[in-house]
Amino acid sequence: MRIAQIAPLIESVPPKYYGGTERVVAYLTDALVKLGHDVTLFASGDSITRARLVSVTPTALRLSNCVDQMAGNILQLQEVMDRSHEFDLLHFHTDYLHFPVTRRSHKKTLTTLHGRLDIPELKPLYEKFNDMPVVSISNSQRRPLPMANWIATVFHGVPADLYEYGKGEGDYAVFLGRFSPEKRADRAIEIARRANMKIKIAAKVDKADEKYFDKEIRHLLDQPHVEYLHEIGEKEKGPLLANAKALLFPIDWPEPFGMVLIEAMACGTPIIAFNHGSVPEIIEHGKTGFIVNTMDKAVEALKNIHLINRDTCRETFERRFSDIVMAQNYVRLYEKALHKQSERSFYLTPAYRK
Amino acid sequence: MRIAQIAPLIESVPPKYYGGTERVVAYLTDALVKLGHDVTLFASGDSITRARLVSVTPTALRLSNCVDQMAGNILQLQEVMDRSHEFDLLHFHTDYLHFPVTRRSHKKTLTTLHGRLDIPELKPLYEKFNDMPVVSISNSQRRPLPMANWIATVFHGVPADLYEYGKGEGDYAVFLGRFSPEKRADRAIEIARRANMKIKIAAKVDKADEKYFDKEIRHLLDQPHVEYLHEIGEKEKGPLLANAKALLFPIDWPEPFGMVLIEAMACGTPIIAFNHGSVPEIIEHGKTGFIVNTMDKAVEALKNIHLINRDTCRETFERRFSDIVMAQNYVRLYEKALHKQSERSFYLTPAYRK
Repeated sequence: MRIAQIAPLIESVPPKYYGGTERVVAYLTDALVKLGHDVTLFASGDSITRARLVSVTPTALRLSNCVDQMAGNILQLQEVMDRSHEFDLLHFHTDYLHFPVTRRSHKKTLTTLHGRLDIPELKPLYEKFNDMPVVSISNSQRRPLPMANWIATVFHGVPADLYEYGKGEGDYAVFLGRFSPEKRADRAIEIARRANMKIKIAAKVDKADEKYFDKEIRHLLDQPHVEYLHEIGEKEKGPLLANAKALLFPIDWPEPFGMVLIEAMACGTPIIAFNHGSVPEIIEHGKTGFIVNTMDKAVEALKNIHLINRDTCRETFERRFSDIVMAQNYVRLYEKALHKQSERSFYLTPAYRK
Repeated sequence: MRIAQIAPLIESVPPKYYGGTERVVAYLTDALVKLGHDVTLFASGDSITRARLVSVTPTALRLSNCVDQMAGNILQLQEVMDRSHEFDLLHFHTDYLHFPVTRRSHKKTLTTLHGRLDIPELKPLYEKFNDMPVVSISNSQRRPLPMANWIATVFHGVPADLYEYGKGEGDYAVFLGRFSPEKRADRAIEIARRANMKIKIAAKVDKADEKYFDKEIRHLLDQPHVEYLHEIGEKEKGPLLANAKALLFPIDWPEPFGMVLIEAMACGTPIIAFNHGSVPEIIEHGKTGFIVNTMDKAVEALKNIHLINRDTCRETFERRFSDIVMAQNYVRLYEKALHKQSERSFYLTPAYRK
């Protein structure tokens, strides 16, 4: 199949540093190539891919001293449309920016929505564009926008060989990601303390979260059971997870997916997560971790984390969350789009069908 | 003629406070109605217009607690395209956001570019979209983008009755607008001091310019010849200008137009301006003001400001910069677009033709 993947330009594919969407697009693109498809990736010029790369900007916009970020996005959109005859299917990862263009196109398209959707302005937008086929990354992500034309949920995947399975022999729990009010590092620190376990924290502070970090988090990091590793690279992430007894994920927001959940599973590391967003779709309670609603339950879960079989975590990862599984799920969607007898019936598939 | 005007959504039309583009769109839209055209304005729901108003958002985005500003813009774009059959011509004021859509449309469109264009990312964009007919608001504005398909320059206009002619009987010069490094209020204050004249300053401080204001400007406002009026409303602007001996416009950047220049002229007030951007196209040296390159020349000009005939300033305004003149210039362009025998020849009119 001749497939175009259209990535955001804000980060390279994969991203140099943080950037969940671009990382998934990288894994998906390479996995589609591995599966034998003819794939073209539209992304910034510093992207690294097994596919054919088409770039309208030399570098990722976040790293260039770019004044006008929209210009590159519009330029890329036109480049995609100019070349659309070269492809059987266009797969967009750029939110809704292309909708007014692709609605007018006869090319088969689908769009994976990577972000949080509980933003009031999106409601009238998806009421208007209720014919555009969109893919969710968890079922819970769809909740704020039932009117959108959801054609499937496809979970993210990561390459099966990217993270090494580990036995969790370090005597610590781990918190990974960002310090932000919705990620609740404060809860993670307290859960570990009350369960009498060390905690290693590898997280970054976004500009927007600096005040929150200074006020709510910084002083908590001084406790003797806390080891603060600042922001770490991909290479350090694997061993950190593989040696951890558990990943703590005590979130307080509707997380659309949560890449770190499947990264932990890839390392065989069970997860203790609060029940929000995608959590109950990704974690099987009692099998790959514990889903909790209170701090007491979280502490109890961490004390009982040895009840979770780490082999089961890794096996579950391989079965549900590898890059190849993700790519196969998308290929099935692409084929469905292409082989529909009537174009209209594809575009108007009822919402919430998996 | 059935004309659609498509405004940005960031401010209402006209804007509640600051917002040059939306103000011009308001004047143009109402003037087209006065000229007997059937005009539809796409703008935020709190806009006030003589035309038919179509709104996808209840209020201007800057004043709502909007998380995602792009959503409204994309929604409006689709609304415009859904209704495009109702219009003979679509006139966009929304930069380049619509280009990938209108390029594929058979509807006649033109786009007025209201902002500064010396932004590196715009070059590859306008190389790609070198067929999209664009209108500049001064010839100098075009300089960074010679590859764009410039079809005309149309100067901004304001309603002839909006500002009252005055005799400049106040004993002061005036500086109006924003405190920002490119506007050079510091120069204005020094020019007045050295010419032994009072200066009244009505300007706002944008969030982005707060540091600059504190460091470079605040202490200058304490001088005895300076009267600082903070931000003023439209109603106060007229008398302030009409009683001023001169408007000081000692800019240090390529101003694309400069609405305050024609507002001053409407009041009969001559201008002393540094020679950048649109200045030599709007001001006639020795007739409606003085164009200078140095502080010495600016001081000399202010001392000689009585040599400028205030009646000539007002007459020049009425002849060149009224809302009706602007609307007539646009109508001529619209007609040109509609009556072209070949669509292609209109879209490919050579650049820099006035």
